[in-house]
Amino acid sequence: MIDKLIKKIIAMQNPTCVGLDTSFNYLPEEMREGVKTFSGVAKAIKEFNKNIIDCVCDIVPAVKVQIAYYEAYGVEGLKAFDYTLKYAKKKGLTVIADCKRNDIGSTASCYSAAYLGKTDVGGSLLNAYKCDMLTVNGYLGTDGIKPFVEDIKKYNKSIFVLVKTSNPSSGELQNLRLENGQTVYEKMGGLVGSWGEGTKGRYGYTEVGAVVGATHPEEAEILRKQMPATFFLIPGYGAQGGSAQMLKVCFDKRGLGGIVNSSRGIICAYKNEKYAGKNYAEAARLACIDMQRDLANAIGKMGK
Amino acid sequence: MIDKLIKKIIAMQNPTCVGLDTSFNYLPEEMREGVKTFSGVAKAIKEFNKNIIDCVCDIVPAVKVQIAYYEAYGVEGLKAFDYTLKYAKKKGLTVIADCKRNDIGSTASCYSAAYLGKTDVGGSLLNAYKCDMLTVNGYLGTDGIKPFVEDIKKYNKSIFVLVKTSNPSSGELQNLRLENGQTVYEKMGGLVGSWGEGTKGRYGYTEVGAVVGATHPEEAEILRKQMPATFFLIPGYGAQGGSAQMLKVCFDKRGLGGIVNSSRGIICAYKNEKYAGKNYAEAARLACIDMQRDLANAIGKMGK
Repeated sequence: MIDKLIKKIIAMQNPTCVGLDTSFNYLPEEMREGVKTFSGVAKAIKEFNKNIIDCVCDIVPAVKVQIAYYEAYGVEGLKAFDYTLKYAKKKGLTVIADCKRNDIGSTASCYSAAYLGKTDVGGSLLNAYKCDMLTVNGYLGTDGIKPFVEDIKKYNKSIFVLVKTSNPSSGELQNLRLENGQTVYEKMGGLVGSWGEGTKGRYGYTEVGAVVGATHPEEAEILRKQMPATFFLIPGYGAQGGSAQMLKVCFDKRGLGGIVNSSRGIICAYKNEKYAGKNYAEAARLACIDMQRDLANAIGKMGK
Repeated sequence: MIDKLIKKIIAMQNPTCVGLDTSFNYLPEEMREGVKTFSGVAKAIKEFNKNIIDCVCDIVPAVKVQIAYYEAYGVEGLKAFDYTLKYAKKKGLTVIADCKRNDIGSTASCYSAAYLGKTDVGGSLLNAYKCDMLTVNGYLGTDGIKPFVEDIKKYNKSIFVLVKTSNPSSGELQNLRLENGQTVYEKMGGLVGSWGEGTKGRYGYTEVGAVVGATHPEEAEILRKQMPATFFLIPGYGAQGGSAQMLKVCFDKRGLGGIVNSSRGIICAYKNEKYAGKNYAEAARLACIDMQRDLANAIGKMGK
């Protein structure tokens, strides 16, 4: 699945991922008016996401759907999550479910079945959710990641493992130095590299990617050198403070190697005076165009 | 919420937690026959969990519901998850949602609202799911945990942070030694201790607990000494190979300080020849009684 994503990035000259972290509170007032129930929220979020997707699907290669924002609205919220994944897929986008799942092997198998593989019900193999890529947390080590790796090979999917996250306190654990001189995030990077072995695609990247925050350029530079075959999902651009100049170290000499997520910067662009007078979907499209220019200026031509 | 749990453990002289990791495949054949859809699965799982809860709620203090097993059946599975939490709560059990959630602060707030706090919809505060305690993963550091800590204080709940997990490869990252001489799990233990500050209850334990696997007694002993105010959720007993003798180091001189989870050992007890001739709910009850005896023999009187 990583080859398909990279091919689209090259074709669109755009490594932008639209983060559908759709809090009900982000919706325009007229969409929120009178809504008092989770089913009302879910209906409004579905409409909002659909219109955003319609307005950006020809200029961005991927969306990332952050499940926490949907879980907050209970089972009804998850119906909107399910709808969003399916609709984005239908419109040709690469769909990343941002769930950061993690557990011991037998339990990780259930998560993997839910998002990447299929669930066996009396001999029928059914899909719980439909997505192309999933974020996971590697704190439990290899046997917690193995079920995901098996499914990505079987079903042509990808995962991104948290390595160096974009949040301010990510260094508390991740930047600690081990007695062998490596940091914890470098050690995690090494594990991620080993988990990806045997899945390298035509562009030289494997199906086991890494989450590396745009907000930490020094660490990103170290990881890019350490992990030449690992594709990066790069959060933290925009609202969290990461810039194109900061994150360009994540890309290789061909201008490849990562996809940059922006959530609030795109879906809440209609609140930005720069896009005054535009509705939320038009503003999102303009924000994607601006982000593409900004990234392309810093990274250069993709697929040189 | 930790005081309420400990009080029940003392009253029942039983630190057993029943793990409702209810895979459809674990159900008796007659409950699975002819079921081909997720809604059929959800109906069967609800019935199974209800009967287990009815048969154990007077002899165990808590249940742990592992969400991965429900997510595997999509939105329908989550309806069964929601039902199970509510029914267990109604029957007086302390309800632990085992979700191992983790993300940056703004996103962690959504998870916290979903499981511990409330979700704001147009000024109304609604419950997505109802539970007492939640498991979380601390790889992202303090700002990813803070929203949970705020909600446990506000709503009288508890969390358990992964420190030393029960799976075979948990040591790959968790047991690495840092340059200051601490292991990664000890460092995580220290963070957990700091996150719990100011929430100590009448038994001396805080609302921020730790997940410490029964399968790693040496690490558990170190952590018990390092974290005298941290309550342990102890997975790995039974099917995963942990024994009462191995996990007794998690308990203090009063026989307090932890709750021990068993999932397959209880809900699949009907497959064990020891309980031949019993239905799944009766067998689960007998397995709980056996587990109570086994734990009490090793730990001694609770609340001395």
